[in-house]
Amino acid sequence: MLRVDMDRTDIPDAGSDKAAATLGALATPALLLDRDRLDRNLARLSSRMAAQGIVLRPHMKTAKSIDVARRAYPSGGPITVSTLAKAEYFAQHGFRDITYAVGLAPHTAARAMRLRKAGIDIKVLLDSLEQAAMLGAAGRAAGVTPSAFIEIDCDGHRGGLTATDPKLLAVAAALAEAGVKLAGVLTHAGESYSLSMPAALVAAAENERAVAVAAASTLRAAGHECPIVSVGSTPTAHFTEDLTGLTEMRAGVYMFFDLVMHGVGVCTTDDIAISVVATVIGTKPEKGWIVVDAGWMALSRDRGTSAQRVDQGYGLVCDLSGKIYPDLIVTQASQEHGILAIRSGSAQALPDLSIGAKVRILPNHACATASQHELYNVVSAGSDAIRARWPRMRGW
Amino acid sequence: MLRVDMDRTDIPDAGSDKAAATLGALATPALLLDRDRLDRNLARLSSRMAAQGIVLRPHMKTAKSIDVARRAYPSGGPITVSTLAKAEYFAQHGFRDITYAVGLAPHTAARAMRLRKAGIDIKVLLDSLEQAAMLGAAGRAAGVTPSAFIEIDCDGHRGGLTATDPKLLAVAAALAEAGVKLAGVLTHAGESYSLSMPAALVAAAENERAVAVAAASTLRAAGHECPIVSVGSTPTAHFTEDLTGLTEMRAGVYMFFDLVMHGVGVCTTDDIAISVVATVIGTKPEKGWIVVDAGWMALSRDRGTSAQRVDQGYGLVCDLSGKIYPDLIVTQASQEHGILAIRSGSAQALPDLSIGAKVRILPNHACATASQHELYNVVSAGSDAIRARWPRMRGW
Repeated sequence: MLRVDMDRTDIPDAGSDKAAATLGALATPALLLDRDRLDRNLARLSSRMAAQGIVLRPHMKTAKSIDVARRAYPSGGPITVSTLAKAEYFAQHGFRDITYAVGLAPHTAARAMRLRKAGIDIKVLLDSLEQAAMLGAAGRAAGVTPSAFIEIDCDGHRGGLTATDPKLLAVAAALAEAGVKLAGVLTHAGESYSLSMPAALVAAAENERAVAVAAASTLRAAGHECPIVSVGSTPTAHFTEDLTGLTEMRAGVYMFFDLVMHGVGVCTTDDIAISVVATVIGTKPEKGWIVVDAGWMALSRDRGTSAQRVDQGYGLVCDLSGKIYPDLIVTQASQEHGILAIRSGSAQALPDLSIGAKVRILPNHACATASQHELYNVVSAGSDAIRARWPRMRGW
Repeated sequence: MLRVDMDRTDIPDAGSDKAAATLGALATPALLLDRDRLDRNLARLSSRMAAQGIVLRPHMKTAKSIDVARRAYPSGGPITVSTLAKAEYFAQHGFRDITYAVGLAPHTAARAMRLRKAGIDIKVLLDSLEQAAMLGAAGRAAGVTPSAFIEIDCDGHRGGLTATDPKLLAVAAALAEAGVKLAGVLTHAGESYSLSMPAALVAAAENERAVAVAAASTLRAAGHECPIVSVGSTPTAHFTEDLTGLTEMRAGVYMFFDLVMHGVGVCTTDDIAISVVATVIGTKPEKGWIVVDAGWMALSRDRGTSAQRVDQGYGLVCDLSGKIYPDLIVTQASQEHGILAIRSGSAQALPDLSIGAKVRILPNHACATASQHELYNVVSAGSDAIRARWPRMRGW
């Protein structure tokens, strides 16, 4: 259906700098991924979960990359997605155990059932009688038996039924009646993103666990099988002290981390695996400004740290090797311009960066920043080489 | 350099709902463009400028689409871009008079000169001696004569030299010495976005004009040709009362308009040409919430209206025909979830929308929202038909 233009003329495109072999030669703005940090972040949570016999089902909404997924599970494994375009993409690349963790609508029910018909173990999410009936009809139309989680609300963050809601058993009964397999219960402690005290994070994780286990118990007591008890958010996954009764953990941003997660207290800035390389395109020493070619199009409009104790503007600035310039942040962003300045109240001096100098910017929110880019330029600590370019998928 | 995966299996993709012939059948979230409103917005500014003999050089950072560009100039015309990827894209599609209105760096100088070598009249932007020398070197290396604007700062918004800065003449002399043609002066009243009173907007437009004309006069008095005197922002372009001494106007978001521009007072909500179609995926009547499948990935993280008199959340909600639900806004957004609720303080009732119902969401910031999508689903007022799908370009 897309138009094809017939009048393309012989105009050069970006040329070799987009395929640069070294960080220093890279055309900017560009997204970097430090593979060593990625691997360390992946190992940290997977070893924590493996030690307790909990399935780790990474959420691919952050990375949106088969290459990143394979660092977690080299030959496929359980994953979470938030769009069916991701489900289709990861299925096409060999991941066959997929939870689509966004509430179901008629068009997504039909589309998910096409995947199920193709042999993918896709599990969907719902919290209402209407959705249960709709999913049953979509399964019958496709000639497959659907599998669904009931979404549980543990902290008032978004969708789902509370563990004590009488509708819980009604939805389970509706699923059974509609010929849908109950996959289990699924909850997400979304409110944990707003915390920063370890004790509060431990309590949020315990609440998430307790609510999910209570919901599963209610269902089982009523005779429903409830094989999976799934919880997860990056903060609670790292602060949980008790996983009793759970079978699986979901998390996404833990792969890359970001300044918001640093503000929550889940990671150090040295754990943040992605950054945006930018070039200085102007200086305004009289204002204390350095202008770079990374604006909100490269960094995203996310200002998640504005509600935290330390506001990082649109990102924290490092030199090209990744060393942080103390208190140098992106204070303003327009579409393709970022303004670097020393954080208000700091006595640090503005670094001496002239036109053409390059910096790296740590993002507020890895999911949002990465989604502004087509691919990851993959680097390793201590090397200037671009080791690989990993494409990202997008769309719905 | 991109990896090709060898193990793609036979998994279905989105299927026919992404190519739906009608609005009602469209898979969501999806970006809509009302072509009638687009044409009306284009005509409004172009007739205003034509009446005064001013060249309109639309900024393509908002639309990023050759099909939209051709509604403004069917067989090509003067345009503005903010990345060289856009310059290359529009040049490939027949637009040959292009201003790249972001400060120059060494890698962009070389890349722009490749376009110039291919016969494109690309004009670049700078405000320093270093950039003048760098551009001269890039021109010599490519065997072309570069053409550059000196960026003028009219309101302290971003880059550029003030009209009275002694560096203005020094940069002009450096350009001459480096063998660069002076295209003229260029300024942008970026601070006008924060205004909302007509008198203040008229004053901002007059200031933008006066500063640009003063800079041009200084250059001309010193013997420099300064053929183009270019100003522009969507608010000042629509509020200017005197264009004396100017030769061209730039604006971008005026093609689509958005809720921020509505808050500034440049347009009505009926002028807003793009919207995001979303589907209801959950209801929480006890909280006054309707959950839809458009989160910040579909709407962008832009919260530009938060600083205005009326905060529109992440967008203002309409029915599928485009009629606004009074005071229904997107109050919260996560990656793929939006929460619709009645604006705080309003006595309006939550509309009765159940699972599967569709709505349209007017965006805060058209540039940011459109950039989250691959294509425009083009519609006309009063019709349910998708008339065309226009791809968008992206990247740098």
